[in-house]
Amino acid sequence: MSMSNSPRETGDYQALDARHHIHAFLDQKALNAEGARVMVKADRLHIWDNDGKRYLDGMSGLWCTNLGYGREDLVAAAARQMEQLPYYNMFFHTTHPAVVELSELLFSLLPDRYSHAIYTNSGSEANEVLIRTVRRYWQVAGQPKKRIMIGRWNGYHGSTLATSAMGGMKFMHEMGGMLPEIAHIDEPYWYAHPGNMTPDEFGRRCARQLEEKILELGAENVAGFIAEPFQGAGGMIFPPESYWPEIQRICRQYNVLLCADEVIGGFGRTGEWFASQHFGFEPDTLSIAKGLTSGYVPMGGLILSKKMGQTLVEEGGVFAHGLTYSGHPVAAAVALANIKALRDEGIVSRVKQDTGPYLQKGLREMFADHPLVGEIQGAGMVAALQFAEDKASRRRFANESDITWRCRSYGFEEGVIIRSTAGRMIMAPALVATHGEIDELLEKTKCAVDRTARDLGLL
Amino acid sequence: MSMSNSPRETGDYQALDARHHIHAFLDQKALNAEGARVMVKADRLHIWDNDGKRYLDGMSGLWCTNLGYGREDLVAAAARQMEQLPYYNMFFHTTHPAVVELSELLFSLLPDRYSHAIYTNSGSEANEVLIRTVRRYWQVAGQPKKRIMIGRWNGYHGSTLATSAMGGMKFMHEMGGMLPEIAHIDEPYWYAHPGNMTPDEFGRRCARQLEEKILELGAENVAGFIAEPFQGAGGMIFPPESYWPEIQRICRQYNVLLCADEVIGGFGRTGEWFASQHFGFEPDTLSIAKGLTSGYVPMGGLILSKKMGQTLVEEGGVFAHGLTYSGHPVAAAVALANIKALRDEGIVSRVKQDTGPYLQKGLREMFADHPLVGEIQGAGMVAALQFAEDKASRRRFANESDITWRCRSYGFEEGVIIRSTAGRMIMAPALVATHGEIDELLEKTKCAVDRTARDLGLL
Repeated sequence: MSMSNSPRETGDYQALDARHHIHAFLDQKALNAEGARVMVKADRLHIWDNDGKRYLDGMSGLWCTNLGYGREDLVAAAARQMEQLPYYNMFFHTTHPAVVELSELLFSLLPDRYSHAIYTNSGSEANEVLIRTVRRYWQVAGQPKKRIMIGRWNGYHGSTLATSAMGGMKFMHEMGGMLPEIAHIDEPYWYAHPGNMTPDEFGRRCARQLEEKILELGAENVAGFIAEPFQGAGGMIFPPESYWPEIQRICRQYNVLLCADEVIGGFGRTGEWFASQHFGFEPDTLSIAKGLTSGYVPMGGLILSKKMGQTLVEEGGVFAHGLTYSGHPVAAAVALANIKALRDEGIVSRVKQDTGPYLQKGLREMFADHPLVGEIQGAGMVAALQFAEDKASRRRFANESDITWRCRSYGFEEGVIIRSTAGRMIMAPALVATHGEIDELLEKTKCAVDRTARDLGLL
Repeated sequence: MSMSNSPRETGDYQALDARHHIHAFLDQKALNAEGARVMVKADRLHIWDNDGKRYLDGMSGLWCTNLGYGREDLVAAAARQMEQLPYYNMFFHTTHPAVVELSELLFSLLPDRYSHAIYTNSGSEANEVLIRTVRRYWQVAGQPKKRIMIGRWNGYHGSTLATSAMGGMKFMHEMGGMLPEIAHIDEPYWYAHPGNMTPDEFGRRCARQLEEKILELGAENVAGFIAEPFQGAGGMIFPPESYWPEIQRICRQYNVLLCADEVIGGFGRTGEWFASQHFGFEPDTLSIAKGLTSGYVPMGGLILSKKMGQTLVEEGGVFAHGLTYSGHPVAAAVALANIKALRDEGIVSRVKQDTGPYLQKGLREMFADHPLVGEIQGAGMVAALQFAEDKASRRRFANESDITWRCRSYGFEEGVIIRSTAGRMIMAPALVATHGEIDELLEKTKCAVDRTARDLGLL
């Protein structure tokens, strides 16, 4: 791999960045005072900053570099397509081979009940298309009153106005505003609800909130229910096993579309191609992005069931949606090479059978009896450590966000990137991780968690 | 340039595409019956389909390939960045050289009144961020009631729920729904309003609708006014000269942010770096995309005035927005190479001084007395031909959409891609066009317009 040929000092980058750039989801004034870490090169699971410090990237960028960094096949696919046809649109009754072949490959991986794709540039756009398409579907299907989307508190579906409204992050609602025809139910976060309910009892209770909400709003007004199979940005929360079967029963019973946000869970993260397959339910739509291209080029999309796709195509007339970069040829070529590698190199199946269990077992051996860790969740190459003040009663720290942030900062010091959410440390390494790379992730995470526990007097 | 190495027949691509793909803004059932044109390679202003037919691309893809196809410098920039650091996020208090240098270059081109950029993947996302950021700005600035965005009928700002609501395409509103806190005024389309008003009188009257709307809604509730400097998807409509000065006066007087959608007009299209400079007004925000990367990799962004940027950074606390691919390194590297080429090869200044006037003069010489053409508008490398049934009274054809669609189809037959809107033929060739390429565009467009006129018995 080439070394960085950057001619500038870190301080110069930081000053320029501070002068002109508003970053994502942070206090820019505080960051400007601190100075952004300048990342300059990466290979497989490792990334280097401008001062030569090396990190094990335990988050695959932002849950997206499923194939890891430094994939020459993806670079070659992008360059080849960019030389041949760097761009063409999907508006002028035109198409191109890369997007056609991407569709062919995608539907070869998906169960037979899915038939159509709409391509976008991101997960946010995928979920925007979802809202507009689901409402259009019900118009065409003769039930135009079905317009309400039900999401979940602490769910995450994107950063546009409608997707942030459909998500359940209240601090995001405050920035742009809430929207009509959107409702929320609680998340199935068992650990956050101390009491005597078993996980399965709790899962069923959470699922039945959906039934209550549908009855309250009127099934004739409800278009769809959207949820991440496991909550990503919300804290990598796996629902109890009872949850998804009950959700699916309710959606079918009330004729409400079941919409899976697979942006984080898709493309092998859990060891299945899609996280809904891991949990054993069959959504009507799948929103995809991130692992679709391993993040090398932005791309997202919406997969529709055969019933929805055929209704829209056969009876829908002009489809009043499109993005300049829908089905972008370079993005499609990279997605094609990426999915082929995930499949042909046996990466997804290895996550299921070998590396996923190795990571999950390692985490449980390392942290099951750790004084700071109340719960360990995960499957395949995604996992969370729930911090707890009292494990027996599931009591959480009052200042848990400060504590997990501290742990995340120790991680950076130790040379591992893991993410902090309200009360959990989360990880989602690249799916190509070897046992050795997983060992490094585990050991450095242990150092960061131990240092945090020592600060709290727990070790 | 390499030849297509595609191994498949056109019919195979068409069948696969029909089976799985929902395209943008068209009737998929009709397209499936007709078969999509399969585009396979391109160079400069030319593009070839899978059957070897060559087209002069008069629309630069979709107003985006400002540098034309086949730019090896952009391919090299993408490949180099992708090898080095194909992705990293802007969430984890991190940045990278490509996005820092892109900001540096952008603000070296922009007037001193702008200071901050927020990066996205598309123009739709840029305008989504606009809505959320403008509302947040007014909260921080102590006027939280200022939330309403005013757009224009027949304006276009994207295909998400909020951007399509803010835009004025009614058929798009029907698909997803209208939103609260959004209002519209008329577009300044002089040709569509026959009568005795001069263009300047009409322009002032249209601008004053903004004043009336602000007074109706209460200035204390209005956050911003968004418009394209010239309307793009709406028909490449240039407003009368009186329009923008009056709009700017009204926005300043009522403390309403003036938000320019520069997605189509930006990066040299009119011969100025931004279309607002061509029209001589000073917006508070600029939404950018398309020409930012010449479409080689998806990217968009929002430029903020110093006043807005500094208010948000210094007083705003955590900014509750972010996209996985905000400031994507590969997109940023391509944008950097693209803007450098536009600047260092003198392409933007050549559009202003040489090729733009050559195109505009050629169109006027060719079509001023054409029986089908009632008006010719444009500047630099963007232009429109207004079709009219009676030129003296500005009477338009009742079936004008059918007529322009026919002209567009003749264009494809003649080997030129120009776009039809309701009653206008529009063109926006790559900014690198030579006189010879412009001649080809003009001659083939003439053939298509003449064939259309002959069908109507006008020639």
